[in-house]
Amino acid sequence: MAKKAASYRMGIDLGGTKILAAVIGPDGAILGMAKKKTRDELGPDGVIKRMVDTANEAAAAAKISLKALAGVGVGAPSAVDFKTGVVYSASNLAGWDEVPLGARLQAALDLPVLVDNDVNLGTLGEFHLGAGRGCRHMVGIFVGTGVGGGIIVDGKLYRGARDAAGEIGHMIMQPDGPLCGCGRRGCLEAFASRTAIERVVRAQLAEGRPSILPELLAAEKDRMTSGVIKQALEAQDPLMVEAIGSAQYYLGLLVANLINALDPEMIVFGGGVVEALGGDFLAPIRETALPYLLQQRNADKIKIVPATLGDQAGVLGGAALLAPFTARKA
Amino acid sequence: MAKKAASYRMGIDLGGTKILAAVIGPDGAILGMAKKKTRDELGPDGVIKRMVDTANEAAAAAKISLKALAGVGVGAPSAVDFKTGVVYSASNLAGWDEVPLGARLQAALDLPVLVDNDVNLGTLGEFHLGAGRGCRHMVGIFVGTGVGGGIIVDGKLYRGARDAAGEIGHMIMQPDGPLCGCGRRGCLEAFASRTAIERVVRAQLAEGRPSILPELLAAEKDRMTSGVIKQALEAQDPLMVEAIGSAQYYLGLLVANLINALDPEMIVFGGGVVEALGGDFLAPIRETALPYLLQQRNADKIKIVPATLGDQAGVLGGAALLAPFTARKA
Repeated sequence: MAKKAASYRMGIDLGGTKILAAVIGPDGAILGMAKKKTRDELGPDGVIKRMVDTANEAAAAAKISLKALAGVGVGAPSAVDFKTGVVYSASNLAGWDEVPLGARLQAALDLPVLVDNDVNLGTLGEFHLGAGRGCRHMVGIFVGTGVGGGIIVDGKLYRGARDAAGEIGHMIMQPDGPLCGCGRRGCLEAFASRTAIERVVRAQLAEGRPSILPELLAAEKDRMTSGVIKQALEAQDPLMVEAIGSAQYYLGLLVANLINALDPEMIVFGGGVVEALGGDFLAPIRETALPYLLQQRNADKIKIVPATLGDQAGVLGGAALLAPFTARKA
Repeated sequence: MAKKAASYRMGIDLGGTKILAAVIGPDGAILGMAKKKTRDELGPDGVIKRMVDTANEAAAAAKISLKALAGVGVGAPSAVDFKTGVVYSASNLAGWDEVPLGARLQAALDLPVLVDNDVNLGTLGEFHLGAGRGCRHMVGIFVGTGVGGGIIVDGKLYRGARDAAGEIGHMIMQPDGPLCGCGRRGCLEAFASRTAIERVVRAQLAEGRPSILPELLAAEKDRMTSGVIKQALEAQDPLMVEAIGSAQYYLGLLVANLINALDPEMIVFGGGVVEALGGDFLAPIRETALPYLLQQRNADKIKIVPATLGDQAGVLGGAALLAPFTARKA
């Protein structure tokens, strides 16, 4: 894999609903971007074709030829074998199991392609170009439909022995806890994801508790988006205040466990829920976590901060896989 | 710090009850060893003097002059600032807080001295010379009076940002759980250490449940040693079988959480309880952990194995801090 010191590269973020591609300059600047719906009902062949189309559109938007790129870094919402570029069991992409995504894109684009888990790349993006710049050891936590994580050790993404590190959403908080999307019980994700927040709130609504939520949901075709969560919180809806408080509590325990185990300098929180609720969402998480740290010395120096790159973190992280960035002129 | 390719070095393991020092050859062989009681009632000055005496005795046993050593690697049962060699808040050494142990020993022995947490060094010893040889990513879990851990990432000990990584005994398993020695509730250590096992068993004895334990304890001046635990288990004492089963269950959840987060190739279990009970202790831990792994692909390849170096792991890990080992002739 070429590691040109100053080179253009592409990041592609394959999501369950949309594909995002961007051409990134040597300093990490986005020079052109394109977006398409994933349309996962088309299956891997159809989706890969759409990824290639999105890549071409991003190149066109950046007024650059694909040939001028050092390579492509792709994030997939699934387990990925980083060495082979094979995608395994993407839970929100129908029919994706053991798809050689790296090889397929490499053939179609005639460029070096690296594939990694999307949350790993979000973490890597924040580390190189976002909230984590200048850090040495960092953990990224992304709270959305699920809860994902990525770990930076000594300035590098840590993938583990099976490229399976960072699955912090499935650390067990309570063995007999609520059912998780993964089929097990009591995972962090079953307490603190948007899905978990929605489950708790809807159960309360079904019991007839008064709330502003039915009104807000009606305006969103009954979808509990991060925007709905934000509006309900701003209106101090008691159901939502409780549900968010519970999610924050479990995220606080998770943060404590991660700091006791990994002692990072910084924990960066991203994902739809955090983006919608902003930095205020993090204060109670920090407050829960700190008293649980065994090592209290310098505990106040551990930064727990919101991500800054939004949904561009993934494409920027993908670009970071290909070649180091040059220092950006501020 | 000199990193001579082939050099003799010393490891010193400072424990709450005993000091162990050993001269280690370039291939990791122990050439001479000495042991003294810690006598922590003497305070830091007295204990440091005893460490120096133990070091001299180990050198004499190895028939080597201290001057011939590349340096000394010391493990302390406490938080340690690795860069400065200062020991903080050793919970089982009275009066040790902010003791510049590295500088003191360096002055007394006239040798380079590195100081680290004892469990880190036990992990490092097992990694270089014991169960973890050949591994890339490994976690060490030591179950004794407490539960400690060490993390190897990419062939190196991972210390974190505040030299506080690996405190896995204080990951929270249940926020309203039993009181831990650290003063918090529901830490893993409060479920799975020898202290926790003893607490559970004694509560049952106090309730008058029939057990072989009063007899076994009488022979040991009422001390619940790892040996007593082993004998009670061998006699299939129902109280002990239950208490050990519960400890194994929580260690299984811990292992699952660590694999989901860190995805190591191997988890090495050491410490007094594991040494006494042997490899059989690990099977139920593995059985609890595996179904909780999000990534099931190659999960059967993750090794969960007993440590092989016993109480020499610490001095060998200390020696490993000083210089790389040469390949040992088998």
